[in-house]
Amino acid sequence: MSEKQKKPQKLKARLPRGFVDREAADIRAVNEMTAKIREVYERYGFDPVETPLFEYTDALGKFLPDSDRPNEGVFSLQDDDEQWMSLRYDLTAPLARHVAENFNEIQLPYRTYRAGYVFRNEKPGPGRFRQFMQFDADTVGAAGVQADAEMCMMMADTMEALGIKRGDYLIRVNNRKVLDGVLEAIGLGGDDKAGARLTVLRAIDKLDKFGPEGVKLLLGPGRKDESGDFTKGAGLSEEQIGIVFSLFEREVTDVTGPIGGDISTIKVTYGDVKSFKPSGVRLAAIGAMDLSGKFNEGQAELSAMTTLFNSAGYGPDRIKIDPSCVRGLEYYTGPVFEAELQFAVTNEKGEKVVFGSVGGGGRYDGLVSRFMGQPVPATGFSIGVSRLMTALKNLGKLGQDDVVAPVLVTVMDGDVESMGRYQRFTQELRNAGIRAEMYQGNWKKFGNQLKYADRRNAPVAIIQGGDERAEGVVQIKDLIEGKRLSGEIEDNTSWREARVAQISVPESELVAKVREILEAQAEDRARTS
Amino acid sequence: MSEKQKKPQKLKARLPRGFVDREAADIRAVNEMTAKIREVYERYGFDPVETPLFEYTDALGKFLPDSDRPNEGVFSLQDDDEQWMSLRYDLTAPLARHVAENFNEIQLPYRTYRAGYVFRNEKPGPGRFRQFMQFDADTVGAAGVQADAEMCMMMADTMEALGIKRGDYLIRVNNRKVLDGVLEAIGLGGDDKAGARLTVLRAIDKLDKFGPEGVKLLLGPGRKDESGDFTKGAGLSEEQIGIVFSLFEREVTDVTGPIGGDISTIKVTYGDVKSFKPSGVRLAAIGAMDLSGKFNEGQAELSAMTTLFNSAGYGPDRIKIDPSCVRGLEYYTGPVFEAELQFAVTNEKGEKVVFGSVGGGGRYDGLVSRFMGQPVPATGFSIGVSRLMTALKNLGKLGQDDVVAPVLVTVMDGDVESMGRYQRFTQELRNAGIRAEMYQGNWKKFGNQLKYADRRNAPVAIIQGGDERAEGVVQIKDLIEGKRLSGEIEDNTSWREARVAQISVPESELVAKVREILEAQAEDRARTS
Repeated sequence: MSEKQKKPQKLKARLPRGFVDREAADIRAVNEMTAKIREVYERYGFDPVETPLFEYTDALGKFLPDSDRPNEGVFSLQDDDEQWMSLRYDLTAPLARHVAENFNEIQLPYRTYRAGYVFRNEKPGPGRFRQFMQFDADTVGAAGVQADAEMCMMMADTMEALGIKRGDYLIRVNNRKVLDGVLEAIGLGGDDKAGARLTVLRAIDKLDKFGPEGVKLLLGPGRKDESGDFTKGAGLSEEQIGIVFSLFEREVTDVTGPIGGDISTIKVTYGDVKSFKPSGVRLAAIGAMDLSGKFNEGQAELSAMTTLFNSAGYGPDRIKIDPSCVRGLEYYTGPVFEAELQFAVTNEKGEKVVFGSVGGGGRYDGLVSRFMGQPVPATGFSIGVSRLMTALKNLGKLGQDDVVAPVLVTVMDGDVESMGRYQRFTQELRNAGIRAEMYQGNWKKFGNQLKYADRRNAPVAIIQGGDERAEGVVQIKDLIEGKRLSGEIEDNTSWREARVAQISVPESELVAKVREILEAQAEDRARTS
Repeated sequence: MSEKQKKPQKLKARLPRGFVDREAADIRAVNEMTAKIREVYERYGFDPVETPLFEYTDALGKFLPDSDRPNEGVFSLQDDDEQWMSLRYDLTAPLARHVAENFNEIQLPYRTYRAGYVFRNEKPGPGRFRQFMQFDADTVGAAGVQADAEMCMMMADTMEALGIKRGDYLIRVNNRKVLDGVLEAIGLGGDDKAGARLTVLRAIDKLDKFGPEGVKLLLGPGRKDESGDFTKGAGLSEEQIGIVFSLFEREVTDVTGPIGGDISTIKVTYGDVKSFKPSGVRLAAIGAMDLSGKFNEGQAELSAMTTLFNSAGYGPDRIKIDPSCVRGLEYYTGPVFEAELQFAVTNEKGEKVVFGSVGGGGRYDGLVSRFMGQPVPATGFSIGVSRLMTALKNLGKLGQDDVVAPVLVTVMDGDVESMGRYQRFTQELRNAGIRAEMYQGNWKKFGNQLKYADRRNAPVAIIQGGDERAEGVVQIKDLIEGKRLSGEIEDNTSWREARVAQISVPESELVAKVREILEAQAEDRARTS
């Protein structure tokens, strides 16, 4: 092994598996998008705070396996003092650590936001990346569902700030206590059944993807996908599955009783069975079961949230209670919510599907408490930045890269004195606020310079050879008009009188003339778009 | 070991050693700063491109030691296919990999910029962090020194865009070939002496920090610092040290000959010995030594760069040739440059010192070539974002956090219906573009709500109890005016007539009245600053 390393093979340039480089248009699109999100979070009174990319592995809430490297889903390494550190896999666990560590200095409720990269040590696949960006907001130290309700409204406002029309998005809301109540009633309560409950959660979370039949297989014996891969199921009986499913079929019509008070007095009333019917399973009427405690508490919280939504003007066209929204993460303890984009896109199989989730969150009352001797309630949500960006591009709301390429000052003579002149032209343009660059490659092949300008989509080229120099003038080429005149561009503005594609002006008029051409080009772009 | 892990101790919230959390004021300051830097880079015609945080370890140009974990200065781990990956330690090596990997698609010269975190696996210490941000710009595929000259001018313009006055910064420029020529002449040429050359470079790089006497010790037998720690020296003789030092003492007065042509015809002329004299060492006259080749080539390149600077209007008050600027990195092959802030600050010992370097760079013609069968010249520079931010704060150019805290809508009654009303007030303010939040903590202790508003520095509080509710009004408290009237704030505006610190208005006038108060507060702030 060490022998091999001493004879290195030819160095190959390659990205690590599951990672990507990001190009200019994407970077600019993300910047534009995150600026808009930030504006909404700030308006809601949240302030930024950031944590580093590393945390001690135990602080992330991962169990160390009995192996040398605790690499189950996270990237981990051992520090020189033998402590295991991991790259964060979300932004919530590090925030919990931050709050606990600075508890005495922090003013509760603590309302913060952050954007940053997170890492998953998973098998990379098409469209599955091991580094991606999340943009989170959290309120720590707020026990009431009004804090959860605010998160939902902020998600709705964020969608609209990004240009997503009402009706094209929906914030789906549910409460973990409702499902936990049902699972308890069918015998899946208690700490020792935590794993089974998580399998059930993750199965329900796939309702959009696999439909009711697929989810039933995942709740029962297991499911084989088209490639033949088998996913082990939760092993529930048909009756148990029927009870879980009946949750999605009956609508809650009324809830009475206090929030955060004596939950035994909460009363939940059900409406008719909804149209969405699982076939071949005898339905147990939830109303007939012992579902008082947790179940009713969850329903009451949802009812209170609905009142808050309605008071603030957020109707069910924007935020809706949906019992099938569960979120796959184990640490949620109360309300959960998800921002779903409802417009149709064509998937890789050519099918029309709803775009789906671009973010979500919920209440995690246990995460900060793990570090403390006292309960610290918290709620928050997270936006998947790359996924949301894909959605916005689909809607034509992003990616129209309106950054104009730089003016190219070409180099005809390479002696230091001439180079100094070209540099001066370039600097004069820049000082006037115009994007410009002097050609930095091998100047001897002038054709390469024009090819560079073309591939770079430069709007204007500046040329000065010996003759022009003697006269004290520069040639200015309008490269966009040049393309148009040569028939390379055929646009709606072809009716207008052609501009002159190349003009000679005194050196002193260079900046003014370039500005004039750039303005004319901008007008053309505005007219065609 | 595994027994221990099975019995976890109480979970302790703590940051990994050498990492920090970042607070709101810092995050906003960095955002403000990077936006200004980006604007300059864009104006120079550079476009963004980003790479992920991981690279394969070999691509970073680190030598794998014969141990299991190649953790010499970088954070490394082994992927499940046994390949070693490392977190990037700068932004240059990943860019070289990116260019090599996408060489056929990339249009040269390739002019890009990027900001991002880099990691150093070093012993943490006060002010020494293991994660920090750099902001780089690079031109790949440009062999001429005009590309290096442009980098220097861009650094100067960046400093001024950040509000650093001319005279408060200096871009120092040198050329590695000059020093390499001298080192060759004193017997430190050849691949086997690469380590010794690096030690010399790093010693000279400390001239600012340790002064000439300290550097001489580092070039010779070694240096013991105040704490008694000993740093091994380069082991040069007194005569060798004298020759190296004479570089900094004589000024080049003239250089003639071609750039990139026959270097044997380049002629360098020296002026008088400068005042900066090392004591007790017999000076060898550099002019008398065999320093033609590399040495003269470096001087000629510096001369050409000076011509370009002068043509474009960048005099020695902004960019200056300085033989003591060497940069500590091994991979530079030609011009090197450093942005130095010249204003005095007080260090931790209470001494007045020049603030020093905030970034630098140089030509690295070998980095991309390592992956390719052909030479790929490149040059670039890197700004240390945290260090620059510290400098700007010292100058009062950043950190005046002008984000106003949110208006606080207090909660007097916690029933769902009342809560709905408070939520509606909050949402109305937000919809009008006013930062606002409803109190999310335990509403039962009203005193806590006002304490929260105070610690958060909220400008306005909204209050509605049962009586106000019955009348359809809200109380609006101007918290800033309140503090002023109670004598907590004593400012220049105390001459003006006092505003009313609390007012009752109909619910429908809430937004208009809050806006009026916020505008009056903004005027006060503008008047006092």
